[in-house]
Amino acid sequence: MHSLRSPALRPLPLSPASNPSRPLRFRLFALSLPLFPSSRRSPSERLARPAAGPRFRVVRSCGSVTAKPSSEIGRRGGGRPEPDERLRSLRELFTRPGIGIDAYIVPSQDAHQSEFIAECYTRRAYISGFTGSAGTAVVTKDKAALWTDGRYFLQAENQLNSSWILMRAGNLGVPTTSEWLNDVLAPGCRIGIDPFLFSSDAAEELKEAIAKENHELVLLYNINLVDEVWKERPKPPNKPVRIHDLKFAGLDVASKLSFLRAEFVDAGASAIIISMLDEVAWLLNLRGNDVPNSPVVYAYLLVKTETAELFVDSSKITPEVMDHLKNAGVELRPYDKILSEIENLAKQGRNLWLDTSSVNAAIVNTYKSACDKYLNKKSKARVHDYNGRSAMPSGVYRASPISLAKAVKNDAELQGMRNSHLRDAAALAHFWVWLEEEINRGAKLTEVQVADKLLEFRSKQDGFIDTSFDTISASGANGAVIHYKPEPGSCSVLDVEKLFLLDSGAQYVDGTTDITRTVHFGEPTPRQKECFTRVLQGHMALDQAVFPENTPGFVLDAFARSSLWKIGLDYRHGTGHGVGAALNVHEGPQSISFRYGNLTSLQKGMVVSNEPGYYEDHAFGIRIENLLSVVEMNTPNRFGGVGYLGFEKLTFVPIQTKMVDSALLSSAEIDWLNDYHAQVWEKVSPLLDGSARQWLWDNTRPLPIE
Amino acid sequence: MHSLRSPALRPLPLSPASNPSRPLRFRLFALSLPLFPSSRRSPSERLARPAAGPRFRVVRSCGSVTAKPSSEIGRRGGGRPEPDERLRSLRELFTRPGIGIDAYIVPSQDAHQSEFIAECYTRRAYISGFTGSAGTAVVTKDKAALWTDGRYFLQAENQLNSSWILMRAGNLGVPTTSEWLNDVLAPGCRIGIDPFLFSSDAAEELKEAIAKENHELVLLYNINLVDEVWKERPKPPNKPVRIHDLKFAGLDVASKLSFLRAEFVDAGASAIIISMLDEVAWLLNLRGNDVPNSPVVYAYLLVKTETAELFVDSSKITPEVMDHLKNAGVELRPYDKILSEIENLAKQGRNLWLDTSSVNAAIVNTYKSACDKYLNKKSKARVHDYNGRSAMPSGVYRASPISLAKAVKNDAELQGMRNSHLRDAAALAHFWVWLEEEINRGAKLTEVQVADKLLEFRSKQDGFIDTSFDTISASGANGAVIHYKPEPGSCSVLDVEKLFLLDSGAQYVDGTTDITRTVHFGEPTPRQKECFTRVLQGHMALDQAVFPENTPGFVLDAFARSSLWKIGLDYRHGTGHGVGAALNVHEGPQSISFRYGNLTSLQKGMVVSNEPGYYEDHAFGIRIENLLSVVEMNTPNRFGGVGYLGFEKLTFVPIQTKMVDSALLSSAEIDWLNDYHAQVWEKVSPLLDGSARQWLWDNTRPLPIE
Repeated sequence: MHSLRSPALRPLPLSPASNPSRPLRFRLFALSLPLFPSSRRSPSERLARPAAGPRFRVVRSCGSVTAKPSSEIGRRGGGRPEPDERLRSLRELFTRPGIGIDAYIVPSQDAHQSEFIAECYTRRAYISGFTGSAGTAVVTKDKAALWTDGRYFLQAENQLNSSWILMRAGNLGVPTTSEWLNDVLAPGCRIGIDPFLFSSDAAEELKEAIAKENHELVLLYNINLVDEVWKERPKPPNKPVRIHDLKFAGLDVASKLSFLRAEFVDAGASAIIISMLDEVAWLLNLRGNDVPNSPVVYAYLLVKTETAELFVDSSKITPEVMDHLKNAGVELRPYDKILSEIENLAKQGRNLWLDTSSVNAAIVNTYKSACDKYLNKKSKARVHDYNGRSAMPSGVYRASPISLAKAVKNDAELQGMRNSHLRDAAALAHFWVWLEEEINRGAKLTEVQVADKLLEFRSKQDGFIDTSFDTISASGANGAVIHYKPEPGSCSVLDVEKLFLLDSGAQYVDGTTDITRTVHFGEPTPRQKECFTRVLQGHMALDQAVFPENTPGFVLDAFARSSLWKIGLDYRHGTGHGVGAALNVHEGPQSISFRYGNLTSLQKGMVVSNEPGYYEDHAFGIRIENLLSVVEMNTPNRFGGVGYLGFEKLTFVPIQTKMVDSALLSSAEIDWLNDYHAQVWEKVSPLLDGSARQWLWDNTRPLPIE
Repeated sequence: MHSLRSPALRPLPLSPASNPSRPLRFRLFALSLPLFPSSRRSPSERLARPAAGPRFRVVRSCGSVTAKPSSEIGRRGGGRPEPDERLRSLRELFTRPGIGIDAYIVPSQDAHQSEFIAECYTRRAYISGFTGSAGTAVVTKDKAALWTDGRYFLQAENQLNSSWILMRAGNLGVPTTSEWLNDVLAPGCRIGIDPFLFSSDAAEELKEAIAKENHELVLLYNINLVDEVWKERPKPPNKPVRIHDLKFAGLDVASKLSFLRAEFVDAGASAIIISMLDEVAWLLNLRGNDVPNSPVVYAYLLVKTETAELFVDSSKITPEVMDHLKNAGVELRPYDKILSEIENLAKQGRNLWLDTSSVNAAIVNTYKSACDKYLNKKSKARVHDYNGRSAMPSGVYRASPISLAKAVKNDAELQGMRNSHLRDAAALAHFWVWLEEEINRGAKLTEVQVADKLLEFRSKQDGFIDTSFDTISASGANGAVIHYKPEPGSCSVLDVEKLFLLDSGAQYVDGTTDITRTVHFGEPTPRQKECFTRVLQGHMALDQAVFPENTPGFVLDAFARSSLWKIGLDYRHGTGHGVGAALNVHEGPQSISFRYGNLTSLQKGMVVSNEPGYYEDHAFGIRIENLLSVVEMNTPNRFGGVGYLGFEKLTFVPIQTKMVDSALLSSAEIDWLNDYHAQVWEKVSPLLDGSARQWLWDNTRPLPIE
């Protein structure tokens, strides 16, 4: 699937902090809407990230409602009754001793910059009533404003009551949050935030922006004002953590920690704080159940030269996991004790590696203040660190070294990805044969019902755990809405005369899948076939690309668009994102996109999606997505003394040949499609019998020779 | 041709100023050697630009010797005798009153950042004896060092005497010029430069770098120390300027000046200084004869709101040109009066638009100082500008608006390019038939003789003026030396058993050409054919690309490499550079390259080269180059509401089908080649008769059907 939080990467005034210095390259493509996520985003990009509605079990960036189970999905309906009790209670807190603020900013984030977040952290949705995935609420003593982007203008209009001003981010003349605050507040005000919910970079950017009007950014460490007024706030998740088996992880925790220690010692640090949840899970070979779609657990990991400490709710830690951690030399600490331990680091004279683009402002500022305090206290005396060496603690500000290490999969991880993809393909075969039969017998199935059924087939597969994102099940014109969000009451019924786009994925114990197919149950129009064929040509061109080492993904992006460009078509999203191994379905640092800000080269072992598309407004949407792993190619030459890389397919699900206009294909392209289908049959048929096996056979036949 | 000064864009310590902050993107491709020029270079890139040998009539960045007339070409031979009189005389000047310096830097540049420079400005070559195109000489009271890059290590070893230290830029541990100065001088020294020979940006960078050791950068405005000691220094060029006919220019000078005035007024300026020679020539519809290969004249153009002044040696201005300038409201000023007029601007309270990446430090600093002086003098009084408005003069620091305007050709310019390319193609047909006959009858022709003969054929064409760069005539293994420089005494003889690469171009009254063909006179090996075919496939892929507006050239670069990458091959230069219309053969701002620092989008009317290649060390080189103009494509769709662009071929010269392994080609590729050759015949045959016409017929036949 393509990432749905992509508009965040446009220079929209969604962020609480303005970003006047955004480089030109982010503005170059007038076309550009979405983009795939990267774990290295600019502060304001991070700020514009998703939160979600409090009444939705499944929360995700795109704001699309989960397809499972549909009974749980509801709508808030119109705005809350006036006067707004929540706003009133919140404002009462402004004047409480120790707080004393004139405005409060409520972003969408949790404390870990997660894509999917737990319900108890959906504070922006609670306070504003707006449940879309992207938005920022700002409350002053007499005003309340909510920023969101074009995907959500309608929803926000419906959900906000008249106490709220809707800020249509991206529209001409709409100020950023900081511009607005600078405008509506008298100079010299105090603007409060929960410093856990802002990355350090984002908080710094905000601080600078509001300083123009002499406002002070007040970091309220000990209280989240929304939590304070949130009646019946959901409990934090507390499901048990499980061990990610070594046979799937491929590398034990000790080795990973040892790699990490070598990295930070090399950089002159003696400790590192890991706050991205997938990084913690990857490092410790643990998987959690705290958020939908991503198998992660809310935790911080602090790794020092000789010890490691996991800050986590210990009720989630089974005795087995406890043993696993002990074996790796990892000790438990309470989740909420992170700041006091950060302060200790400075006392101990430790240099702490901090990735300020992801680590929250609470942690970074606590460390900085402690260093200052320590320096002042001891500046006249000779100082010694925990090893008895002379030392003055200071931060080492660098990007996390885990991101790249995690992206480059080892053999065990790749094997798990391959295996889980075959089981996923088997589930999809069952699903497609069921769906075709239903449609053929005239059943009226809604998009949500179809997605629920898909989940049912997947959940029968060995090792199934969860969806990897909310299924995009889109019939006809809905397919053209890239961020389509089917809802039970209003979603469409599948139609034999319309295209159907299905973008879905699953978490298995051994791997993560993400696949899109677009099919027609009746007779596609020539226009639909031409567009589908050109999308497929782009898909094939990228699939077959060979490129030298050190090539960033954006270099390959045009391969996927070239066939569409020939007839003046294009698509407004990137072509590929990284995918975790039994982890987050969106991960950095690599991507394949027309955005050339991401210089990360594609490296052997990385997994990326290949998902060109075409979307015709009010008519249909087409996307064809496989996952690929980057492999070394055995080229007859190695010019420049470097390796040449290419892709191995992970996804083996038929592509509907009915949609292909084979007159447009070269013989090499026809060979690609036939060869792919032969592989699909060979790899997936052993997992099938009966009608599903027959369906697979029928749908893997070579193209007829014209 | 590919630009030969390209290594300048690598982070080599060639520049007098170090550049520790060069962005990562310039380092990413380990492969990358050359790059096409752009008129927007970073200061250190500009510093690393070409100069040339004083005894060479033709001077160019690549250091390749002109092929015309060979009798004029000689070699300096080994280093000058010791003791080095030139160095001694130079150092004597260090202590002269009003100078008082401890070191002097002699770069390759002229005062206009030109690619080709007049002999009288080849000061670095004079002082060091090293005649290569790229290099920087630094002389202290007791040391002398010369920086050059890998292309010239051997030549520099031969040409430098023992007074000189050769600094092999790019080799591990070799310091930059400023690092070296910081190392060898005691802190607090005075380092002199001629501020005309450094762009303002380069001088600032240098100043900052040497400030680390407290050195002062001393701008010696009134004296160039090398000129002072240069006995028998060549006279500055003085050939007359000619009018570039309106039927070729397409736009009169008044219109161009009016565009320029609107631009600078918009930017809050009331004057602009144009110092790039091709920009001056383009603006005034003038062409000159001051430097080889480029039809430009040494001049500055100062355009004010109401007047324009051309600073030029008036002896070059014929009465006809005088009238032409008068009609456009352009007055003459002596070339060497530029600084005093710049000072006047500040006095008049004018805001001056300065492109500090190209305008020299003498001009920029004179303006800044004058502004300061003016501010101090008048700060207490009410100030009025030339229009009676209150004003304080200040610089408007922006990239020159001419670069893009010049790059986007109008219809007349494009027609001139088309016409001149057909005459050039006719000359090449005559040349190739002559060459094949000579080779067939067993003649032993050197690379230089062949280049001279090509010049002879070209000079017979209507409107021929000059070569557009020094011909690269390379037999066998010489073709693999991308910056190959044939010299009369040592160059190779063409061989019926070897590949021959010929990269050449001409200046005509109506256009500029640049074409590369690679041929075999006997039987190419399968390896040569495979490589040639893959280079051709890249050439065809780029030629046929369709892409949306706002696409920077680098997006298309991979199309030209893809076929080579499939077998692990690549080439170490960009794929396309801009070309002027009857102007410089290399121009910015666009380029098609793997370097993604150049964000300029390809725009309708731009001219670019399409020149993928492959180079096998010690064996052979292949390059296939056409010029293309960017055109709007009549696509059936215009997704995103933007136009879709593609290319129109300007070059119509056969591609040797003997070199093509047609088994590798798709039927679409075979069609491309056959169609191209049909067009070549149709367009060029009317200009030919006799054996040349027969040769064209023979060489434009369709590929045999296999």
